[in-house]
Amino acid sequence: MLERVPSAEEIRAMNKDELRSLAQEIRQFIIEKTSVKGGHLASNLGAVELTLALFSVFDFPHDRVIFDVGHQSYTYKILSGRKDGFDHLRDLNGISGFPKRKESPYDSFDTGHSSTSVSAGLGMVMARDLQKDDYHVISVIGDGSFTGGEVFEALNNAAALKSNYIILLNDNEMSISRNVGGLNRYLTNLRAGKGYNRLKDIVKQAFRKLPGLIKGISNFKDSIKEILMPRGMFFENIGIKYFGPVDGHNIPEMQRILQKAKDLNRCVLIHVKTMKGKGYEPSEKKPEWFHGVNAFDIATGLPLKAADGRSYSAVFGNFIDNAALTHPKIVAITAAMTENVGLTDFAAHFPERFFDVGIAEGHAVTFAAGLATSGLHPYFAVFSSFLQRGYDQIVHDVCMQDLPVTFCIDRAGIVGRDGETHQGAFDLAYLSGIPNMTVMAPRDALEMEEMLSFTLDFNRPSAVRYPRGKAKERLDKVRPQPIVYGEAELIERGSKIAVLSFGDRFNDALETVERLKQRGYRPSFVNMRFAKPWDEKLVDELSNDTELFITMEDGAIFGGIGEKISAHLSEKGYHGTVRNIGIPDRFVPQGNPDELYHLLKMDADGVMEIIENDLVQIKA
Amino acid sequence: MLERVPSAEEIRAMNKDELRSLAQEIRQFIIEKTSVKGGHLASNLGAVELTLALFSVFDFPHDRVIFDVGHQSYTYKILSGRKDGFDHLRDLNGISGFPKRKESPYDSFDTGHSSTSVSAGLGMVMARDLQKDDYHVISVIGDGSFTGGEVFEALNNAAALKSNYIILLNDNEMSISRNVGGLNRYLTNLRAGKGYNRLKDIVKQAFRKLPGLIKGISNFKDSIKEILMPRGMFFENIGIKYFGPVDGHNIPEMQRILQKAKDLNRCVLIHVKTMKGKGYEPSEKKPEWFHGVNAFDIATGLPLKAADGRSYSAVFGNFIDNAALTHPKIVAITAAMTENVGLTDFAAHFPERFFDVGIAEGHAVTFAAGLATSGLHPYFAVFSSFLQRGYDQIVHDVCMQDLPVTFCIDRAGIVGRDGETHQGAFDLAYLSGIPNMTVMAPRDALEMEEMLSFTLDFNRPSAVRYPRGKAKERLDKVRPQPIVYGEAELIERGSKIAVLSFGDRFNDALETVERLKQRGYRPSFVNMRFAKPWDEKLVDELSNDTELFITMEDGAIFGGIGEKISAHLSEKGYHGTVRNIGIPDRFVPQGNPDELYHLLKMDADGVMEIIENDLVQIKA
Repeated sequence: MLERVPSAEEIRAMNKDELRSLAQEIRQFIIEKTSVKGGHLASNLGAVELTLALFSVFDFPHDRVIFDVGHQSYTYKILSGRKDGFDHLRDLNGISGFPKRKESPYDSFDTGHSSTSVSAGLGMVMARDLQKDDYHVISVIGDGSFTGGEVFEALNNAAALKSNYIILLNDNEMSISRNVGGLNRYLTNLRAGKGYNRLKDIVKQAFRKLPGLIKGISNFKDSIKEILMPRGMFFENIGIKYFGPVDGHNIPEMQRILQKAKDLNRCVLIHVKTMKGKGYEPSEKKPEWFHGVNAFDIATGLPLKAADGRSYSAVFGNFIDNAALTHPKIVAITAAMTENVGLTDFAAHFPERFFDVGIAEGHAVTFAAGLATSGLHPYFAVFSSFLQRGYDQIVHDVCMQDLPVTFCIDRAGIVGRDGETHQGAFDLAYLSGIPNMTVMAPRDALEMEEMLSFTLDFNRPSAVRYPRGKAKERLDKVRPQPIVYGEAELIERGSKIAVLSFGDRFNDALETVERLKQRGYRPSFVNMRFAKPWDEKLVDELSNDTELFITMEDGAIFGGIGEKISAHLSEKGYHGTVRNIGIPDRFVPQGNPDELYHLLKMDADGVMEIIENDLVQIKA
Repeated sequence: MLERVPSAEEIRAMNKDELRSLAQEIRQFIIEKTSVKGGHLASNLGAVELTLALFSVFDFPHDRVIFDVGHQSYTYKILSGRKDGFDHLRDLNGISGFPKRKESPYDSFDTGHSSTSVSAGLGMVMARDLQKDDYHVISVIGDGSFTGGEVFEALNNAAALKSNYIILLNDNEMSISRNVGGLNRYLTNLRAGKGYNRLKDIVKQAFRKLPGLIKGISNFKDSIKEILMPRGMFFENIGIKYFGPVDGHNIPEMQRILQKAKDLNRCVLIHVKTMKGKGYEPSEKKPEWFHGVNAFDIATGLPLKAADGRSYSAVFGNFIDNAALTHPKIVAITAAMTENVGLTDFAAHFPERFFDVGIAEGHAVTFAAGLATSGLHPYFAVFSSFLQRGYDQIVHDVCMQDLPVTFCIDRAGIVGRDGETHQGAFDLAYLSGIPNMTVMAPRDALEMEEMLSFTLDFNRPSAVRYPRGKAKERLDKVRPQPIVYGEAELIERGSKIAVLSFGDRFNDALETVERLKQRGYRPSFVNMRFAKPWDEKLVDELSNDTELFITMEDGAIFGGIGEKISAHLSEKGYHGTVRNIGIPDRFVPQGNPDELYHLLKMDADGVMEIIENDLVQIKA
């Protein structure tokens, strides 16, 4: 059936069995493609039927759907003419794993970070009404994303709507980790029909026994239904119409309720129950393992390539799990990413000292500040690009009060195939601009452990930032010198040229140094260790006999550390040249990290190309 | 009674009348002091009784209270030994208008930005329980702050608590502007007792008539009460105990309910009704005018010093109100600050094109992006330091999609007496580091109008940032040349020294140029206009005969524009010196802006001092 992707009209004409077969084929297609290219599997498997229902009831791209986070949009992409693109899913220049307006007119809003879809949808609705357009707007959002405060901010505004807007709450009881908190408890009750059914039974019983009473207080039942119905009360209370719960894998049922919802002139929330990872046994059993996957064997669900060494996340996880034994002040926080950031063991061993706050980075940061005012040392492990949500709280709650909170920033630098929204390009810039903050980046796993050790007794705000994936290991396994506040590691003292490497750029910096040596130069080589405060003393000393400084960082050049070194040298009237190597002023697309670093001229090839003209002036 | 501030014990012993008199005296004291020093009046007048009640029931500073935003903490400051400090309220080195841990052990958490108090309070509670301490934690938060999503993120977590934590919801139906949204509607219903009373009456009636039934379904009433009580259902639904509404100006009633709440082993929300501006006729009538005030005449409520000219906020407000007539795509957004950002007229003239989203900057930005995808051009007027809350959304929703949203950034640079939390120090840095963004800063009112005009047909993300207070006016009133993308205004072409001025630093830059002339120099003088993209071509041209560049900006040096110019010149192997004048790497305290700019060496005195040594090398 999927050989030629059916049109919306054809889908509309399908009967229940045909729809089920189509869903089955789509599911198989998604499993096959992600087993080769990697991608988001479990969330996409959960959204097959609800997307088919949306496609049959609405008229895309005239109508508009916004997928929150966007990691459930594969079925939508297949149905909107992008099936063939899946052979290059998440490749450089291939189709994205997330909605992209540039990719198709069917994609109405780019997503990647959580909890934006209701705000964006509401914007479209307001624009539609103001311009007297007639399209429908639907936001599809998971219960995980629903813990993000921006959703609540948007709901508070959506409540006033007097025109149609549909929020489809895709409730699978998961974020990437299992979902947490009061809202989850509430949704669980809704799912079970608890409370409501209990009352309904009591009321029914009462009315059965008392037919005479019914007339007397004829509107009693209506009153109860209208004012008190616990189903959706949370939403109804603020003025949002609630429908549900409905089985999100039952297409005809979904179609019926969507038809009903689209005619109401207000904001409607449809509560849809789905199963994350549905239809593929391994992902049904362990949806958290199959959230984002690398290539895997379909028969077993096991990765095709065994992990060849520990990841930086694992280095962090292992460190904190051990350190907690001897440091009772340590507590750890995650925003719905226990497994991804390496906190699984810590959570198991120290459940009382572990906090999964849900997708709620802003809260996580202020919460950490609260803990820190009261004698504890919180470690917040979080992805670089997601921590952007807590920028104000880092400034206002942690750094302004100069509190001992440590940010363990995972997925810093280029993350690769998740693309623009997930690149950790800005953390070096936004963190190093905040007073009282200390920022470190390790060159490899051993140095990362030393840096984390350093934070244990460091009583002020600090951050250690490290990339996605396999940790670099030191061949000689000799432990590095312990970290001293603000001091760099001088690897080699040469002259005329100095290569200043930050964190994970170390290997490319080393390669650059080698190539310079091949050209007869004897460059100085520094592993900076600290992005803030960086080692002014060493740089000043080097500047006496250095004609060319090369700074290398895996973050944005604008606002980055290279610029700060340039500015410092400019203040001193330095007469040489400074070349800042880093992420240029544009959003970096998806692709293999090595290939992207090459494209951005951030590897040794790129650096040598950039400094070619400078070398003309410098005698070897 | 206030001659000698009574102790908590003495307050506890007071009867109703004594308490009322004390409240009256405190209120009088606050009115008198703010009438001289300025400050937050209306919010403080509303919180007198509730603070007295807190002080009498709890044992501060052993117990801890966090005041959300903190602009209602004057009574608390008076009662905790800081009454005499009010003669220097908000002065440099005087007491702060906000809670400050450095100021007193009674202040447990610094606030200033909205919606952090529940996250912080929850952190303290968790730390307490983990360390087996026994203090109570109370967060005092207004219904305005409650629209901030971080509160919801925190509530979602607080729901799981099995120990005591009290949230005191101070509901006065206001943020700075009148409060909006679904939550407000819900709270209004709670305040009126609507819904609940209706049901209660119906149920009471039923039971009065049917004594026999009661036994048969003995738990019916309990069930209704427990499962369905609409009062606080919103909170109870997610697992938070709700008490209220209670009259926040009735101290004995408050004491009773606080006593009851402090013994429960869970999260309790007490819904307190207060009147903003209570007890002073002018502020009761116009609480939004008396939120933050300058010195005023107590008898009339009028400012002592009439505004001597229009503010930048008014320049913006006037511009957008006029432009909207001819530009139907313009819509305006505020986050609960209609009056402060100058949108009062626009809101009145274009109610359908005006959106007050509540205190919800993150949502505001994504919402703007949604509007912009659908044919409109949103202008989001917002204070610099509050926009930090929307950093991720600016990156992810506006700039990544390259959408026409214009940020009108008020209170940029040093704002003065509100201190650390309110300084607009970081916007130049955080905005100019984002790809696709354009950032402008005007030297005066006329140039600001030109910049806003420029944005009208500019179909990409843009920002115009301007300071608090009176707009600088051009003496000759000659309109400046229209803005050209990325081009600076060359005021004077000299040589050897070049002064590059950004936005509001213009007058100090001019003064610096004058002083240099007095010393016999003939400096170049540039009004940069654009912080991003800044005018590379002009700077390159100047660099040919300039030995000393001086960049002047009213933002953080780290990540700022000066650094970018330094880095650019360093790439070219520039041999001269570059001095970046801006806000140094520390949080700037409260005080008069001129005095602070002087202190930070950002005025002509400071610049001359900084470059003194450089001048030795440069021949006049």
